Amino acid sequence: MTSNDLSDEQQTALDHFHAVIPAGGVGTRLWPLSRAAAPKFLHDLTGSGSTLLRATYDRLTPLASDRMMVVTGVAHREAVCRQLPEVPDSELVLESEPKDSAAAIGLAAAILYRRDPEIIMGSFAADHVISPDSVFQSAVHEAILTAATGKIVTIGITPTHASTGFGYIRTGAPLEVAGAPNAHAVVEFVEKPDQATAEKYLKSGDYSWNAGMFVAPVALLLQHLAANEPELHAGLTEIADAWDTAERDEVTARVWPTLPKIAIDYAVAEPAAAAGDVAVIPAAFSWDDVGDFAAIGRLNSANEVDDVTVLGDGARVFTEDASGVVVTDTKRVIALIGIDDVVIVDTPDALLVTTTAHAQRVKAAVDALKANGDMDVL
Amino acid sequence: MTSNDLSDEQQTALDHFHAVIPAGGVGTRLWPLSRAAAPKFLHDLTGSGSTLLRATYDRLTPLASDRMMVVTGVAHREAVCRQLPEVPDSELVLESEPKDSAAAIGLAAAILYRRDPEIIMGSFAADHVISPDSVFQSAVHEAILTAATGKIVTIGITPTHASTGFGYIRTGAPLEVAGAPNAHAVVEFVEKPDQATAEKYLKSGDYSWNAGMFVAPVALLLQHLAANEPELHAGLTEIADAWDTAERDEVTARVWPTLPKIAIDYAVAEPAAAAGDVAVIPAAFSWDDVGDFAAIGRLNSANEVDDVTVLGDGARVFTEDASGVVVTDTKRVIALIGIDDVVIVDTPDALLVTTTAHAQRVKAAVDALKANGDMDVL
Repeated sequence: MTSNDLSDEQQTALDHFHAVIPAGGVGTRLWPLSRAAAPKFLHDLTGSGSTLLRATYDRLTPLASDRMMVVTGVAHREAVCRQLPEVPDSELVLESEPKDSAAAIGLAAAILYRRDPEIIMGSFAADHVISPDSVFQSAVHEAILTAATGKIVTIGITPTHASTGFGYIRTGAPLEVAGAPNAHAVVEFVEKPDQATAEKYLKSGDYSWNAGMFVAPVALLLQHLAANEPELHAGLTEIADAWDTAERDEVTARVWPTLPKIAIDYAVAEPAAAAGDVAVIPAAFSWDDVGDFAAIGRLNSANEVDDVTVLGDGARVFTEDASGVVVTDTKRVIALIGIDDVVIVDTPDALLVTTTAHAQRVKAAVDALKANGDMDVL
Repeated sequence: MTSNDLSDEQQTALDHFHAVIPAGGVGTRLWPLSRAAAPKFLHDLTGSGSTLLRATYDRLTPLASDRMMVVTGVAHREAVCRQLPEVPDSELVLESEPKDSAAAIGLAAAILYRRDPEIIMGSFAADHVISPDSVFQSAVHEAILTAATGKIVTIGITPTHASTGFGYIRTGAPLEVAGAPNAHAVVEFVEKPDQATAEKYLKSGDYSWNAGMFVAPVALLLQHLAANEPELHAGLTEIADAWDTAERDEVTARVWPTLPKIAIDYAVAEPAAAAGDVAVIPAAFSWDDVGDFAAIGRLNSANEVDDVTVLGDGARVFTEDASGVVVTDTKRVIALIGIDDVVIVDTPDALLVTTTAHAQRVKAAVDALKANGDMDVL
């Protein structure tokens, strides 16, 4: 793609693109590495040298330049600023308490709308792993041009297997959008399927994984939010009106805690799809939401000591007849002997030992620790 | 047993009993808990609240009162004194470097012989687990009375299964010793058998496990040592002559490093058995040399969290669908999820993860770490 191929309208759309990075979510299934004080997006889970947040920012830079907003919890302000020193205060939205994705993304949309109602925003989670960047960027480029025609545009991931762990997007007819040859209508969003249904989806070729990434004119997004969640919309508008003024703190402190908690999928995406306002750009980049430690093994297979994937600076791992994943942020010597498919996560105050097959059950363990009052390590 | 039943000769023998506790051996198969700086005998491996050394001392006290000598490495002086504050300097024999069991036990014998040639010594490793104490004490009582008749007397452990991990003692004819109804001649010592041979031994009823415990007149022990290892005997005699004088340090520093390394089994027990000078008291107390972490599981089955045996003060172990052994001397939260027969040993600078079935292979791992130069954790 070169700018020579673009019409004035297309260039205007691209110039109005503003990326929003919701950096929330503890990543409980990655405990004890990921935890309230050090959530998933602040870790380098791929051995690349970059945290997931930093990698997300860098991936979006060619499209958004410095038009990027980060929404995160107040507790993470310092860590986020350390990761993204170039983000100015005006682009940092701090939540005093988590209010789910509709409030987080909706506030960003409302603030951006007040600054410029023509903005097309893209929302991309801070804790996903994507490659290659170029294929992702090309899909977002198409999504921006499609959004400019008055659509909420999801990026759909071409499934590589019949996963039961993700929601799916059912693709409809192709849309005729200049510069966006892959744009299709969305028939519906569907919830995580059972195995048989997932196999059917995969075989049909009509379904993409819903990775929660979308691009939309802020005006259209807010219009759907107002229609579906008027109370939330009103509260966000009140905060946004005060945002770039001296009243920000007072209004936010008063209104934010009262906002309803709802996911953006229910507040915007699904109703908009039912209204025929949602498009999808199916894209074939590889995507991983690093849902558990088995994913860490997949994503770091290059860092192997014998058959053990090791993640951690200066790790001292000795293995004999062992396989699995070791994640360490200590400098301890770790010896694995005669044990297969093990997952070991070694942190200064907590140690997890499980297997790749049981990696999804870590969440239940964290819930149990919480119930037991072991908050110091959560 | 009451003193009323004893002849004057028997009482004299008992009064001349002096226990020797060789406290050596790192216990490499218990790494990283047990290591050069904190060997096995300095740990409480049974959850009793006592270290193995302290428990050994307490077990011998009813027989030896304060007639107890400890032989250990100079590096462990402070730790041993902390465990056994009642042991005077004159009963603490410090090795500047390890010289195997014949030198360690032989030096104790030579020192005791110089103090009183009538002493009957008993040698009992500092890192074995025995119960009940009363059965052990009764066997040692018989051993002392048998030793007084001019025998080197081993305590043989009645086998509970066909172990291939221990040497065996082949029992001969009963001996007629007053007060020692279980005393038998020893036909021979045999090395660790293969499985079929071990089964045969068990079935025959003629074999005991060789736990390395023996009781002998120091004069007889030294006589065999002189015959089999004259150089070692001469060196030990030279040190012993200087021991309770101002020359101790000078002579020890000069002679000890020159002594040959040999096990007491080869230097004394086996040749003495061939000469018909060895007896055995078969005894049915339970005995464990805590050879690996699987033993820790057996010895601490009372301390279970679900199906996981936990050893460690203030351990915070969370388990879900897990079994095995956790040994920790940190206060970290340890979560085990969906993993069976696992062995986890958690120390501040090293972590071991293996299975009960592979617990014996820990020694090979330590050897590999040594070869790799990871001396800081060994």
